[in-house]
This record gives sequence, structure tokens and C-alpha cells, in this order.
Amino acid sequence: MSTLLESYTAGRWYAAPDEGAPLLDASTGAEVARVSSAGLDVAAAVAYAREVGGPAVRGLTFHERAAMLKALAKHLGAEKDLLYALSARAGARRSDAAIDVDGGIGTLFSYAGKGTRELPNDTVVLDGPAEPLGKGGTFLGQHVFTSRPGVAVQINAFNFPVWGMLEKLAPAFLAGLPTIVKPATPTAYVAEALVRQVIESGLLPEGSLQLVCGSAGSLLYELGAQDSVAFTGSAHTAGVLRDHPSIATGGVRLGVEADSLNCTILGPDVGPDDPELGLFVDGVVAEMAAKTGQKCTAIRRVLVPSDKEDTVLAALVERLAEITVGDPTDPDVRMGPLVSLAQRDEVRKAVEVLRSSCDLVFGDPDRPDVVGGDPERGAFMGPVLLRARADATEPHDVEPFGPVSTVLAYDGLDEAVALAARGRGSLVGSVVTHDPDVARTLTLGLAPWHGRILVLDRDDARESTGHGSPLPVLVHGGPGRAGGGEELGGIRGVLHHMQRTAIQASPDMLTAITGRWATGAARREDGTHPFRKSLAELRVGDTVASAPRTVTREDIDRFAELTGDTFYAHTDEEAAAANPLFGGIVAHGYLVVSLAAGLFVDPDPGPVLANFGVDSLRFLTPVKAGDDIAVTLTVKQITPRASADYGEVRWDAVVANGDGAPVATYDVLTLVAKSWDA
Amino acid sequence: MSTLLESYTAGRWYAAPDEGAPLLDASTGAEVARVSSAGLDVAAAVAYAREVGGPAVRGLTFHERAAMLKALAKHLGAEKDLLYALSARAGARRSDAAIDVDGGIGTLFSYAGKGTRELPNDTVVLDGPAEPLGKGGTFLGQHVFTSRPGVAVQINAFNFPVWGMLEKLAPAFLAGLPTIVKPATPTAYVAEALVRQVIESGLLPEGSLQLVCGSAGSLLYELGAQDSVAFTGSAHTAGVLRDHPSIATGGVRLGVEADSLNCTILGPDVGPDDPELGLFVDGVVAEMAAKTGQKCTAIRRVLVPSDKEDTVLAALVERLAEITVGDPTDPDVRMGPLVSLAQRDEVRKAVEVLRSSCDLVFGDPDRPDVVGGDPERGAFMGPVLLRARADATEPHDVEPFGPVSTVLAYDGLDEAVALAARGRGSLVGSVVTHDPDVARTLTLGLAPWHGRILVLDRDDARESTGHGSPLPVLVHGGPGRAGGGEELGGIRGVLHHMQRTAIQASPDMLTAITGRWATGAARREDGTHPFRKSLAELRVGDTVASAPRTVTREDIDRFAELTGDTFYAHTDEEAAAANPLFGGIVAHGYLVVSLAAGLFVDPDPGPVLANFGVDSLRFLTPVKAGDDIAVTLTVKQITPRASADYGEVRWDAVVANGDGAPVATYDVLTLVAKSWDA
Repeated sequence: MSTLLESYTAGRWYAAPDEGAPLLDASTGAEVARVSSAGLDVAAAVAYAREVGGPAVRGLTFHERAAMLKALAKHLGAEKDLLYALSARAGARRSDAAIDVDGGIGTLFSYAGKGTRELPNDTVVLDGPAEPLGKGGTFLGQHVFTSRPGVAVQINAFNFPVWGMLEKLAPAFLAGLPTIVKPATPTAYVAEALVRQVIESGLLPEGSLQLVCGSAGSLLYELGAQDSVAFTGSAHTAGVLRDHPSIATGGVRLGVEADSLNCTILGPDVGPDDPELGLFVDGVVAEMAAKTGQKCTAIRRVLVPSDKEDTVLAALVERLAEITVGDPTDPDVRMGPLVSLAQRDEVRKAVEVLRSSCDLVFGDPDRPDVVGGDPERGAFMGPVLLRARADATEPHDVEPFGPVSTVLAYDGLDEAVALAARGRGSLVGSVVTHDPDVARTLTLGLAPWHGRILVLDRDDARESTGHGSPLPVLVHGGPGRAGGGEELGGIRGVLHHMQRTAIQASPDMLTAITGRWATGAARREDGTHPFRKSLAELRVGDTVASAPRTVTREDIDRFAELTGDTFYAHTDEEAAAANPLFGGIVAHGYLVVSLAAGLFVDPDPGPVLANFGVDSLRFLTPVKAGDDIAVTLTVKQITPRASADYGEVRWDAVVANGDGAPVATYDVLTLVAKSWDA
Repeated sequence: MSTLLESYTAGRWYAAPDEGAPLLDASTGAEVARVSSAGLDVAAAVAYAREVGGPAVRGLTFHERAAMLKALAKHLGAEKDLLYALSARAGARRSDAAIDVDGGIGTLFSYAGKGTRELPNDTVVLDGPAEPLGKGGTFLGQHVFTSRPGVAVQINAFNFPVWGMLEKLAPAFLAGLPTIVKPATPTAYVAEALVRQVIESGLLPEGSLQLVCGSAGSLLYELGAQDSVAFTGSAHTAGVLRDHPSIATGGVRLGVEADSLNCTILGPDVGPDDPELGLFVDGVVAEMAAKTGQKCTAIRRVLVPSDKEDTVLAALVERLAEITVGDPTDPDVRMGPLVSLAQRDEVRKAVEVLRSSCDLVFGDPDRPDVVGGDPERGAFMGPVLLRARADATEPHDVEPFGPVSTVLAYDGLDEAVALAARGRGSLVGSVVTHDPDVARTLTLGLAPWHGRILVLDRDDARESTGHGSPLPVLVHGGPGRAGGGEELGGIRGVLHHMQRTAIQASPDMLTAITGRWATGAARREDGTHPFRKSLAELRVGDTVASAPRTVTREDIDRFAELTGDTFYAHTDEEAAAANPLFGGIVAHGYLVVSLAAGLFVDPDPGPVLANFGVDSLRFLTPVKAGDDIAVTLTVKQITPRASADYGEVRWDAVVANGDGAPVATYDVLTLVAKSWDA
């Protein structure tokens, strides 16, 4: 008898007392492992996540969490051979497993990078600028995202046991949430091996990742208003989950990515000699064969202009005929088996239903030629291409989760959009065209129905990652039938795990709560120029307020001469007087900020290493010759970098004229040394 | 018999053929109107929204939609007396009606302003920067928001028939969606009057607003994956909606704002002589009395440090004793009736349940003293204050939707947060303290459980809008029991109505699709300097690429001398050599951008009126004496202003050195005249 898979909960591995159910090799039918969660205390797992894992993760800053994800990514990269070997048992060729294993590890790296670059080295995320809520400036609104003291439960699909786990883990972990994974049973042995690697690495805080192999039991009943469930799988199961009392009335958040009837559209502009025709055919064939079509993002509907239908069908048939099916470890085999005989039977049934309104153009769902593997006990199926008859309904309703696609003819862009919409919401669509107008019309027509759209042409083909590949920096999910969820998309996917709250407070209180200086809050001038303070010494609110300086006509003239910026508003009295906004010669905006720097800078060597940028500079009042200006520079935000001996300091800069009116406002970005010996 | 309220669907007013059900005056029990939707064709209403209203709204840009909202706000402001008069029949005092009527009109104004200032004059919203998806720069990702070709259905609560309709209409309309309103029946006569004013104004496109008075019938069954339902009401009804097949499996998006057990917390720092004590008591009393406590945001739980419980109770009782109850049109009456006898019975029942773990401290739910009105047929109820006994459960579970609050004692900030969390998610909480540490601990502890938190102290009290007032610029909604929805929050509320899609394309295709120039897309130099083109002539992609200029040590010295910016990195060879980032004297960043302006500017009077700002300036490579720099300036985005004879042009600026390495990148913001006669 094979090994019984274990669950990992409450800090230990748990083996069920029963024999468990067997999991079979996709190619040979041999037993790979057994699975059972009998007797597992899922309530204890949820409590452990709440009481041990959650506090441990939330005790770290975003940058510290990101560093852990990076270390984990490196560790898993060094251990991935085991995952490849196990994936082959599930029918995955090496390139199929790469999508899963390397895709998952790449997602960790991506989130590690984004978390460091785009989140503060803190535990609260500010969302947008402060909103003034009164004319006096004493009452402000600021949206923030905070970590929920809850648990992120994953219920994953069988097709990507590694990527599916890591693409959900990374954003949840960055958001401060502990995770409980419930993998799909058919490939639970891959998921279990991955969790063992993570746990044995010791790189994540204890309690931040737990695993339930087998049935989830009463797991969902243990969840409450701060918890979430991220589900990837069938639209049918998604409907069952939505009816669960924890979700319908218990306040548990549910995110769904469901299989969808994704389409690809060949633009009517594409002629027989255009490279886009080959790109289109390549894309369809690649998506049919990759993972033996077992991808939520695979192309199920192939939309082609009716006058090109025969051409496309002929090209597809020619290419599909080259696809060999068999043992996924044989390098000459182009397509492995489906994950199980049950899955193969599901796909065969779906093909039967499709045939009520479609004709079989290529393939035999019942009798593939098999290279290696056991043709009886292996879940083999060759590629199947269908052609929809007029007004076919089934291709828009039935998803064959295997190497099956249907070609549909359209006339005109409006019909192409309408056909795409009949899928009632998809994860991804693609448009193959080199005509910008076609691209715009189709893309904007498809967009409300899709979470992602690939526009493929000769220009981006070389770098394109393809129709079927979600990327960590782009959102993954889709409306309607695709589940209505949204994952990934860089930091967007992190924020989905957090709670957005509008805080209304005085500037001082807002500064205390968020750690970022708010306009109107107390400024501190303690006699030491803030440029003389190291990162360790600087405090939010530290300020330098300059003496005024008069801007002279000579300054303006000299600046124009030095820089070559002789725009008439700075040089030509008569023309400047006619300008509707200025009514006379004004100082260059760049002169104003340059003079301001001269006013606030402390020139001697010190902890301030460089000014690396300026954000949101706005010129609010023209400065004319004879006007005084003064600048106030205040520390707004301090972000130590974990990987360097300096950090970033964002300064609030306000240049005002002699009347006290703001002339220019902006943020100055500097690098400041963590320590400094004068 | 009173007037039968009509529905407005498919371009006409509809009166049901039956008598309808009577709606009674809250103070007198007299019949105000009758309501019925018998025989109404709701399928036709949905089809009309899809086919007439939706296309009409989506044919407008965001700025055009915003201008319509502004005109509507002005129009309704001039007509509001009727709405006040009808609101009084529902029990609203003038100040109660102001929250509803003026609050609703103010929300229209707010969205008109935000829509103009923060959305493009276009129909697509870009979300975040383009993401490079390949090293060669030929494959980019860009998130966009597009309008859904669907219908926004509102199911509103009885308490704010005007605000409730307009706060949902404004974001949906800006997002490009037609609206169908189903008002709560008890105050449907106010909603019907408002819709009549909107329709008769002719200010919104036909089909963009429809009204169903009475039962919604099969309305929800008509909806699909592009439609949404925004519900405000009880948590119980929200659960029923979530089970509706259109929502559970049909892909209809549901947003819920449910009544919640909002709390206010008095900080332990507040002493008997601190102004915060009075602010706290004022806040509780105001929220109990406003709208006779019929607000989703009212304070239900009053959390006070146990050593101050008696003080607070005494102060509350003293203030509550001053509240007169009666005819809402009597200026001496402080609190009107509840909306109906049925509602009064509901509140009485809730108080009875609360008394199982709470003591009655003030008020008699069964026998108020009434000034004016009919004490038998009017739905009057005086304020009721309860005090929770130790370990009381009911105050965290039972919502008395009337002038009822419960005082709960806590010890320590952790217990305060834990008690607040027992409400399982609320719309709003408030914290009254003048201690920044208390404010931070309580606010960040409460945040995951709340959509909005007010921090009240002596500094913001004068401008504070109070615990119970949602504001259009801040999000409104809350997790868990509060429904898990999110509305308003400025443009956030608009984007919730749109679909986010990740588009992957070449730079040229991305530019064609979004209308914004993407890095790597074609630049056009046609022999005319783009500063010589009016807004009407300029095209995205128009470019000026300058000749190179050498930056000399003399330039740097003169700039330092002129501006006073003598930072050592620009002036002191030895010290600059020791800087870890520069290793020698470098040009000022401000000099680089000033020289770049000198290189790209066309100095003579022309359509470019002013440079009003710079965004996202980053200095990427130090410039040393002897380095060449050149600048490329490209039109990135063109935004005509509806209210001026100029518009905004955003330019992509790249300054590169002699090796072609980018030295500085930024966006230049200019105002450009719509037309120009040279």
C-alpha cells in the first residue's frame, strides 16, 4: 500500500487512523498515495492560525514579510526536482510542470519584489491622499488598509497544485494573514510535498501555513467575518460554496476563480500572408495541448471571421495531427494524460453534449493513439476540434476541461463581441490583429466580460507570455461565470485581503495613527537642521522653515540665460502680459523649486545622500519679480530599506509667497543614511 | 382615498390597476398615499435600461456625465421644499430631512466635482502604470476600468429615501450605468416625488433612471452577469438576497450595507474636566435623537472605561431628559416619531430582548410624552438608554432600529477593541480621546472591523461632521454583519461599478486601445513643434526630440550660485567623491530638468499657456560635468476641459545622457489652448 498523505495543523503532522482513499497515477493507474483527513481537528487548525500564525505574521512589516517570501522562493527553487517528479505522476509533462512549479516560485519572487518596492516598511497601507473635510483644515479623512485578524483558507483545483497554492499564499502572507490550504485531492501528493518543503525550511513563521489533505470537514463552519475563502474550481462548486451559511450570512468573504469559456478572436484584418495568422493558430494549438487542456484559462472558443473559417480549420487540423499523446516523461510526447479516468469521462461527456450543435473536425475522444503509458488504465485523450453549426448554444455553456476547442464563425466586430459575451464572463480573452482600430473595438467590447485580454500581433509575439498564462503583476479572475473574483495584480491582490477603512481625525491624530505626517499636523523645529539627522534620529514632523528670499527680474533673466528656457512668459514683457493666466512676466516654475532647494538645503556633507525624485509638483500661484518666497520642508514619511544602510525620506515641501499663499507644493524624495558620524 | 404612487419605466409613468396598499403619516396615522406595482412589466424596464439608458450614458465622457450630475444637483436644490414637506409625513424633523435631502444633493455635487477633477474626459479609466512584461519593451500590461453594459438596481431603506437614492445613483451614473430604483415602501412617496423631479427636469438621458414603486416582482430574475444590485437594509434581508439564484449562481453582483451595531468608545485618558467628555456625551445624544435613531450608522453601543461609567450615565440621563418627542413640524420638538407603528413595535421588541442582559437606565419604550401628533396612531417613542450587565451578549447581537443605545463598561484598550469586535463588523465606530497613543491603538484595533472610524477630540470637534454621517468622499460600508459592501469613497465608488481588466499588448496597440501614449509606442515628429499645435491639433504621440547639450562644470557652478543650492555634491569635489552614490561632483537634479526645459521649449507665444506641474520625477543616473544630455518630450494624454477654452496635456519627458541611459524621467503637465491663431 502506498503512503498515506498527512495534514499539517497546529504545529504538527497528522496521519489519519484509517487507510484513506487511493490516488492513481494518471498514465498507469498505479497507486501513488492514499489520502484521508479522518479525525483531523479543523477547529484547532483555525484557532492555531488565529492565535499563533496570524499574530506572528502581523508582527512583521511588509518588507520583512517580503524578505521571507524571497527566501522561500530561493529555497523552493533549489528543491523543485521532487515536485517535477510528482507532477509527472499526475500526467504533467516537464513543460506542464514548469507552468505550475516555476510559475509558483516566480509568483513568490514577484510578490517579494512588489512588496518591497510598492508597500511601506510598516504594517498599514495608506490609500490615496488625505481628504480635507472642513475649510479650517482641522478635520481630515484618510483611507487606510489594515490587516484582518483572520484566516485565509484556500480551496484549490487539481491542475496547478504548486502555483495554485503559492499564488494565493504570497498575497495573503504579505497582507498579514495565515493560510490554511485544502488542496484538490487528485494531486494532493504534490501539494503535501510542497508544504513539507515549506515547513521544513523554517522560513515562514509557525502557524502561517497549514494543510488539510482530504476532506475539509467542517472547516468552513469555523470561519467568521475576518476570514476569507479563495476557491478555484468549477462554477458548480462555487455555487455550492455561496450557499454555505458561513458565506451567505456569516460574513466570510468568498473569492472565486471558476473555469470559464475563454475565447480567442482572429481579427478580420488578418490576411493569409500575415504573421498574425500563424500566431493565432499557434496560440490555439498551444492552449489545447498545454496541461492537456486542463487550464481554467485555456481557449474553449475559437472565433474567426466566417470567410477565414476554412483556412483556420485546415491549419489547425494540420497542426493537431502532429500532437503525440502518451507517457508525460517521454520527451517525444507532446501531450500527457488527463489527471484521472474520472476526469477523462467528464471531458468525453462534455464533447458529446457539444456535438449536439457542433461537428467533429479533428480527433476521436474515445480512442487516442498512445505512446507509452497504459492505454486502458491511463487517462489518455487526444486533441478534439469541433466546429459550431449556426446558432450553436452549447459552446457558450459547456466547458470540456481537456484538450477540446470549438471554432465559431462571426461576421463583423459586433458579432464577435456578442459571441464572446455569450460566455457570460471569462477569465481571459485574446485578440489577434495588427489593426489598431480592430484592437480597440474588440478589446473595449470584450473588457467588461473579461479579467484579462491579450492583444497579440507581430510586435509583441516574441515577448508574449501567451493567452493562458496569468501573471503575478496582472489581475487574474473574471466576472460572471468566471466567478466574479480577482486575484494577483501585484499589490491589488494584497489589498483584497485587507480591510479598507476611512479614518476621520485631526491632522495630529491622523499622523499618530498612520505614521505619516498629515498636512496641518504639528511641525517640529528643534534647532537642528533635519539634514543633519540620520534616519535613526529623524522623526516624522521634523521641519526646516526657511527665511524669505526675494525673486528678482535679474534672477529670472539669469535663469533663462543659463538654462536656455526663454519661454515668452519669462522673457517678453508684452507677450507675457497677454497670457491669460499670468498677465506679466513670471518666474520659471523650475526656478522657484531650484531657489527653494537653495533655501532649505544644508550644504555640508551629512546623512542626506541624494535627492532621487520629486512627486506631485503643482505650481499654484505665479511668482513675479519682486515677490518674496520662503519654503517649509517637513518629514512626511520615513522608510528604512532592509537591504541598504540608508532609507527613503519623503518630505512635504510648501513654497509660499509674501502673502502666505502657496506658490508650489510637492514631495521631495531623498535617501538618508541610517547612521552618521559628523 | 389618497393618490396612488406611480412607477416610471420604459419611458412612461405607470399606475397599477388596483387600489394599492395605504401608506400612513407617521405622526397622525392619516393616509398619505397608496402603493402598488401590480401588472408592471419589470422585464421591459430592464430591457429599456440595457437598450436605451445604458448606451445613452456610455455615449458620454466622464466629464459630460459629471456636468449632468452638477446640473441635476442645482435643479433639485431649487425644488427641495416639496421633499421636506413629504419627509415630515414620514416623521422627519427639518434637520432630519436635511440629512436626507441636502445630504443627497451634496453627494451629487461631490461626484460632479470628483468626476471632473479625478477622472479623464474619456470613457476608460487607466488603473496604475503600465507594467513591462518583457525585457525588450514590446509587451506591456495595463489595467483599465471599463463600463459594464448592465443595469444598476437599487433596493433602498426607508430612512433616507433621497440620500439613499442619490448616493447610489451618482457613482453608478458616472460609471456609465443606468439605474432602476426600488424604494422602501414606507417612504416611497418621497422617492416618487424625487424621481418625478429628476424626470421632469430632463437633465439625465432618458432610460438612465427608472422607478419601481411597490413590490419588485421578478426584477432580480431579469438580471445577469453585467448587472448589480445595491441593497441597503437589514442583515436578514441581505441573507435572503444572497440566496437568490441570480446572485448565488447568475453572476449578478450584490453590494450590501446592513444596519450594524456601531460603537463609540470613550478613551481612558479623558478626565472629568476634559472637553472630550462633553463631546462624547453630545455625540451619543445626537445619534440617539437624529432621525429618531433610525440610522444604519447610529451609535448602538456606548463603550466607557468602567471607572467612568457612572459619570457618563449621569450625564447622558440628564441630557436625554431634555428631549421632547412629538410632531416633527413643531420647531420645539427635538425628536419626531418612528416611521410607522410596525417599526415602533419592532424597536419595542428589540428593547425587550436587550433587557434580558441590560438594565433600563432611562426612558419608557411604551409610554412617551408626546407634544402634538396623535399619541395613539402616531409611531412615537422616547429615547431609551440601557446599561449592560457583565458579560451581556444581546447588545452585540440585537439592533434596536430606533432611539436606543446601551452603555457597556470596559477595562483596558484590549477589552475595548474586543468588545467592539463582538459586533462582528460595523459601518462606523468612533473614538473620543486626546491621547495620540490611545487613538492609534484603538483606531488600528478597530479598523479591520469597520468601514469608517471617527477620532473626535477638541482639535477637530468644531469641523467634525459627526459619528453618524457618511461622506461622499469617504467609503461607506463595513465588513461582516454590516454587509461586506463598500459605497462612495469618491472615485472608489465609481470603480466598483466598472470592470477591471488587465490588457496585455504592444505599446502601439496599448496606445490605440487606451488613448494614452505608452512607453515604447511610436512617436511622431512631423516638422511642427508640438508647442505650436492647439489642443485640437495635438495628437497623442506627438514628439519633440532635442539636440544634445553638454553640461559643464560652469553650468553647475553658476546654477549653485544663482539658486543658493550649494549642497556639497555639486560644489565640493572632495566631499562629493566620498558620497557613496555619486563619487564626484554631479549636476543638480533641478539643473537637469531646467536645462531639459530649455531644450524642449518653443519660446514664442503659442497655444501652450503654462506648465502647471510635474509628476513622478525620478533621477536615475547622475550627470557629471562634461556629460551630454538630450530630452524627448511626447504627448501622453490630452484632457480637454469642458469649462474652459483650454485643456490639460500630459507629456512624457525622458532626459538621456550621451550613452542613451535615462538620466531623469517625469511627466510635464501643461495647459494648452483649444484653438490658436498664430
